[in-house]
Formats: sequence, structure tokens, C-alpha cells
Amino acid sequence: MAARFQLIPGGTVTTPAGFSAGAVHAGIKTRGDRVLDLGILYSEVSCTAAGLLTTNKVKAAPVLVCQERLAGQKKARALVVNSGCANACTGDQGLADAQEMTSLVARKLGIPAAEVLVASTGVIGVPLPMARVRTGIERVVISRDGGHQLARAILTTDSNPKQIAVSTRVNNTKITVGGIAKGAGMIYPNMATLLCFLSTDARLDPRLAEWALRGAVDASFNMISVDNDTSTNDTVILMASGLAGNQPIKDGTADAEAFKAALQEVCVYLAKRVVRGGEGATRLVEVRVEGAASEQDARLAARAVASSSLVKSAVHGADPNWGRILAAVGRSGAEVDQSKVDLYLDEVSLLKAGSPVQFDVEKARHILKREEVPIRVCLNLGGDAAVAWGCDLSADYVTINSAYAT
Amino acid sequence: MAARFQLIPGGTVTTPAGFSAGAVHAGIKTRGDRVLDLGILYSEVSCTAAGLLTTNKVKAAPVLVCQERLAGQKKARALVVNSGCANACTGDQGLADAQEMTSLVARKLGIPAAEVLVASTGVIGVPLPMARVRTGIERVVISRDGGHQLARAILTTDSNPKQIAVSTRVNNTKITVGGIAKGAGMIYPNMATLLCFLSTDARLDPRLAEWALRGAVDASFNMISVDNDTSTNDTVILMASGLAGNQPIKDGTADAEAFKAALQEVCVYLAKRVVRGGEGATRLVEVRVEGAASEQDARLAARAVASSSLVKSAVHGADPNWGRILAAVGRSGAEVDQSKVDLYLDEVSLLKAGSPVQFDVEKARHILKREEVPIRVCLNLGGDAAVAWGCDLSADYVTINSAYAT
Repeated sequence: MAARFQLIPGGTVTTPAGFSAGAVHAGIKTRGDRVLDLGILYSEVSCTAAGLLTTNKVKAAPVLVCQERLAGQKKARALVVNSGCANACTGDQGLADAQEMTSLVARKLGIPAAEVLVASTGVIGVPLPMARVRTGIERVVISRDGGHQLARAILTTDSNPKQIAVSTRVNNTKITVGGIAKGAGMIYPNMATLLCFLSTDARLDPRLAEWALRGAVDASFNMISVDNDTSTNDTVILMASGLAGNQPIKDGTADAEAFKAALQEVCVYLAKRVVRGGEGATRLVEVRVEGAASEQDARLAARAVASSSLVKSAVHGADPNWGRILAAVGRSGAEVDQSKVDLYLDEVSLLKAGSPVQFDVEKARHILKREEVPIRVCLNLGGDAAVAWGCDLSADYVTINSAYAT
Repeated sequence: MAARFQLIPGGTVTTPAGFSAGAVHAGIKTRGDRVLDLGILYSEVSCTAAGLLTTNKVKAAPVLVCQERLAGQKKARALVVNSGCANACTGDQGLADAQEMTSLVARKLGIPAAEVLVASTGVIGVPLPMARVRTGIERVVISRDGGHQLARAILTTDSNPKQIAVSTRVNNTKITVGGIAKGAGMIYPNMATLLCFLSTDARLDPRLAEWALRGAVDASFNMISVDNDTSTNDTVILMASGLAGNQPIKDGTADAEAFKAALQEVCVYLAKRVVRGGEGATRLVEVRVEGAASEQDARLAARAVASSSLVKSAVHGADPNWGRILAAVGRSGAEVDQSKVDLYLDEVSLLKAGSPVQFDVEKARHILKREEVPIRVCLNLGGDAAVAWGCDLSADYVTINSAYAT
């Protein structure tokens, strides 16, 4: 598919028409010099909303609140989010606190509480400091370019805010898609909380919103993670204001494809930024699996390589130990015939039809030291392909994760 | 089950009647001061043999050879093993080399090549230096206490040899079970090669040998690993000489249980030693899951916790960040009702019926600094339980794995 969208310089989640945001230091994070830790995303009008929430059976209180609200009316006008405390494993009090957060925002903005969504990220098992949350919500000032603040307010151990906006055209109307995300905490990326808030001014019906969101997340955040390996708080929300004024987009049309491509571009960009912001990460590993017997196989194999700790360690050490790549493919669950597999590090051929190729070790080392390391696996069994992303694994990861809560 | 077996001090794989072994420095490992890297296990008589081989779809040449031989006659008299080279992803030459290793041993010992098994561990994708292997096999001298040498010859990055023997009684006859193992390379233990060679002088029929081996491995090595997450070379072999002179053990009897208990004791001991010998590991984490809705659920949950990098990092830092334990349980696939879960660190209660308990943080830290850290999760949904083991995750792991092949 040709890129039919344009990157908007400095774009963020409040770039699409109708959205504004703001954030404050509420004091939920007690370390750091007044870092932002609470924010609100607001839409002038009621939005069509879709969400993908954690599949973990232990679900944080805000996830339970979103689950209920998104199952009902599929409408939202605002969302409130805090970092520094996950409000997970906090019992009935946690649920009451998450609901109170939405009520406070509803009262502040003069909208129904049922149209306010909520998300949290941070340490598990600690109650929210509600006095600080109440004062914090009171003090948030929302503005059209507040998305930049909100992108910083959701960070935990991430090094940098992650934000983007792109525009495209559907039935001769310019529409815009924006988003922000946070991740980190990764050997397996989604063992830490993934939060992603997406906005668009396109007019969408709820089914198209859900379908497009699922497709975009499958090709992005789900390719930096392992099935079911999700945190208690993972939350991806899409809000569509409809203020671009386009004719409603119908499923199965070129317009729907254009919208989906724009949404996917935003999600892939944010997912790669999440990987790059991984704890201790210095490099991005892009794993492309081709010639798989099915799309599912391609996805399984690509993710197995991108999430292999041994592959990640080898990349960190610029060690062309390609046997680890092949071993990961073999245990991925994908159909593999080892006598057919080809393996490439960028243009360097490492393995051809299952047999080792003499290769230039110094050249391979140079490729492994790039900021983006491209690994390609050709299974030569069929026509399906998939791309997954991972980071290298450095000793810093361990240092960071040895002392997080305390 | 009461322990019905006795530990034999200094016991190893050659302790049971009829077994001998030997090892040499063949020069397959080019670093290290003449470390042992090739060895032979030999039985005076033809043994009933059973094996569990890697489920990885990329299988090393020696695994393919064992697979074929064990599918046939279920008999073995010897096995030859080398470290320093995995003979995996080595094409037709690799297969020829593995077969030649068994032929050389057969000729040396005057036994049929079809009764010789073979295993390799080390770097993938490099052909065996067969000139050295040939001279090495020639030079091996086998002896009754050669099991100690063999235990060292199979090591790669393991810090210590792992060996044990126990005895028990079946129909008034003393029988002995011995074993050696190597592991390491672990965030997920079995991403590195697991080799385990078990011997017994008990008389077993082939079906009981397979059944007992499967049960013992499920309760031991499979509880330090994640399903399907196996290396290209994983090999567990049991050889039963029958020289104890017992009446044949029948399945479903108390004698069969006694044999299985002894075999399991050997495997659990070796599995825990494999975890303790993990790269950079300083502590053993024992995760017991109780009250699960099924045995499968208990196993899934226990393994998810024991293999969680975030839990392992927290243990390394003695950080009582118990939310990571609960998050791992929740994503394990096991049935979980978060409002029913209890969590304990040894005797310290951390979570009761899904709500946090005020606990003594200093006491929890002390427990996390022990050599064995006991974590207990009560799901309170049923009557099934399982135990899994993991090690902590230290920065040394990354240092070791950043430069292994080169």
C-alpha cells in the first residue's frame, strides 16, 4: 500500500480537530522534580470510542471501569490518566477511586461521568493518594496543544515522550489521526504497562473504529509483545470526534483503507518508539519473517525472534551468533522445515537452505551496531509475512528492574 | 509421598550397577586449559532406553540420530557426548558426523552402532572438528567412577558439575538411580541446551521406562522451563541395565511408584542444580501454586512466576515488588479470580483475598536475600498444586550472553 498520509510536524494527540489536553504534577510520583503525573484528554464533542484492554486476568481498577463503559455506549468525551500508581490489586477501594476520578473530571468539565474513561500506570498494590489526585484534577488546565504535556504525564521509566500525528484524505476531506503512548519495562515489552491514546477528527461508526483499532494494534503493539503477556493495566483507546466533517466512512471501501493505513502508521511509529525507549535499550531490532505457511506462523516466528533474550543479548554484544535466531524460529510454534530456511542480517546471508554460509564477520558486527538492526528470515514454505520489533538487552535493564518499587 | 530412597554420597551416573564412563579434552573447546569436552557412558549389558528430545522444530543432528534409534529398538549400550559444538544447523555433514561418532564408539567398545546414542552442546552452525573428535574418542578411558569426569565434560557455561545417585528397594531388591545434567544460559532455562543422562540398574520394561521418565521430567526440568521453549539440542536419556536383579517392575504397583519417586528425586535435584548454576544466578526461587482449578493451571501459573524477568529482577534486588508476581499469575493462562488470591513470601503474607496486606518490608527483604526464596500463591479455586523453580536475574547474565560465540 502506498503511503497516503502526511506526517504533521510536532503533531500529537490533540492535533486532530476538537481535542485538547493538560497535565499537572499532582504529587502521585514522590520522586523527581515536580514531574507531570496526572492529565486529562478532552473532546469538544462526544466521540465514538473504541478500546483494547489487557487480557491479563488480574485487571487494574481503571481497566475494569473502561471495560464496562466501552462495552456499553461506545461514547467518550474525556479520559483521565495518572502515572506513579497503577491502582491495581487495590480491591474495592481501588474501584471506588477509579470511579471517583471520572466523576471529578466530569464535574470539572460539565460532562456525564459515563463519558469519561480512566487509565493508570505505576506500582501495583498501592492505593491512589486520592487527596493529591483530587487537587491535581482541579488544577489541570486544558489547551489545544496540551497533548505534549499529556504525553509526558503518562511516562514511568520511559526516557522520552512518544507522540505523532498524520493526516490523510477520505472522500475529499482532510482527516487527522494523532496519538501518544508509553511503554518500557521490557525484556518482554508488555510486561510493563502499555498505554496508548489515539484521537481522530474523522467520523467513524463504532464498528469501523473497533475493526480499525484491532488491525492497527495487531500490526504494531502486538508485534512488540508476546501473546497474553500483558500487564494488569494495558490500555489502548481511540476517540473519534467526527469534526473533520467527512461523510461517514464505510467498511470495505478505499476510504476505510486510507483511514486504517493512517491509524496503523501512528501505531507502528508509537510501538517502535516504545521499543526504542525500552529500559537500557540502545538498538532497535526489526525482524521480518517471509515465506511462512500462514500469517499466524509469520507473526509467531517474528515475535519469537524479536523477544528472545539470547538474540537480544547477542545484538547488544554485536555478536553474530545466528544460531539463536534459528533456535527461536524453531521453538516459536510456526511450521518450519530447517532444510529450507534462509537467514539474513540486512544484506548479509548467514544461512541458505538450512546450511551455514561463510560470511564476513566484521561486516555482520557493523550491522549489529546500527541503531536499527534488520533481521530477515525466509521460511520458504508459503506466501505470508510479518514484522516484529524488539530492543537489545543490556545490563542496564537489570539494574533498572532490580530496584523499581522501593 | 514419603521419601523411600537413600542418597548415595558422591553418587553419579556410573553408580548403578553395570555403568562406566570416561572423558577427555579432545580440543573441541579451544579456550580453557584442557577442559574435558568429550565423553562416553557405557553399560556392560544392553539397556532398556527411553529418551525425551527437544520439541524445537530445528533439531540438531545428534537429536535426529537419537530420535531414530529410540523410536526403533528402545535399546542402548552407550552414549557419546561432546561440548563446545552443538552440531546443529550443520546440514547433511552434521548428520554424517553424528553417525560417525556412534560408529567410532561402537568399534572402540565392540558393540553395535545402533545401540550407541549421541548428544552435543555448544555453538550452533559450526561443523564438528571431526579429526579431533576421532582422536578424542580413541583416547577415552572408561572406568566405574568415570561419571564424575563425564559430568564435567558436558558443561558449557555452567559453573559446576551436577550429579547425584539415590537407592531404593523394589520387591526386596536394592536398585540405584543415578544422573548427571548440564543447563545454564538462562533467563528461560531451556533456551540453552539441557542435557541429562540418567542410569539405573533396575529392570524395567520399555513402557514403564518411558512413563516414569515423562513423569519425572514433567515435575522437574519442565518446571524450570516454558512450554516449547527448548533449544535445538535438548536431550534427556534414561538407560536401565537391569543388573540389580529385581523382578520386572509392573506399572501401577507400589514398586513402580518407588522407582518413579527415586527417578523424580534425581531429576528434581538436577533441575534445581541447573537453575542454581544459571548464568549470573545468585539465588533459587521456588514458586508453589496451590488451590488451582486444575494441575495444568497450577503448572502454568507456577512457571509464569518463576520465569518472569521482572520477578527475577525484583528478587535479585531484594525488592518486595509483589505486584509483578500477581501480574505473572494473571497472564499465565491459568484460571484466576483476583478477589480470591493469597500471596506469601515464605511465612510473610503479602496479599489476602486480592487485597494488599501491611507487611514487614525489612523481613520480606531478608527472605529475598536467602539462597532459596520461597514464593507461595494460593488461588483458592480448587485442589491442584505445582512447584516451579527459577533463578534471580543479575547483570552478569547479560554480560555473559553478550559475548558467547565470539
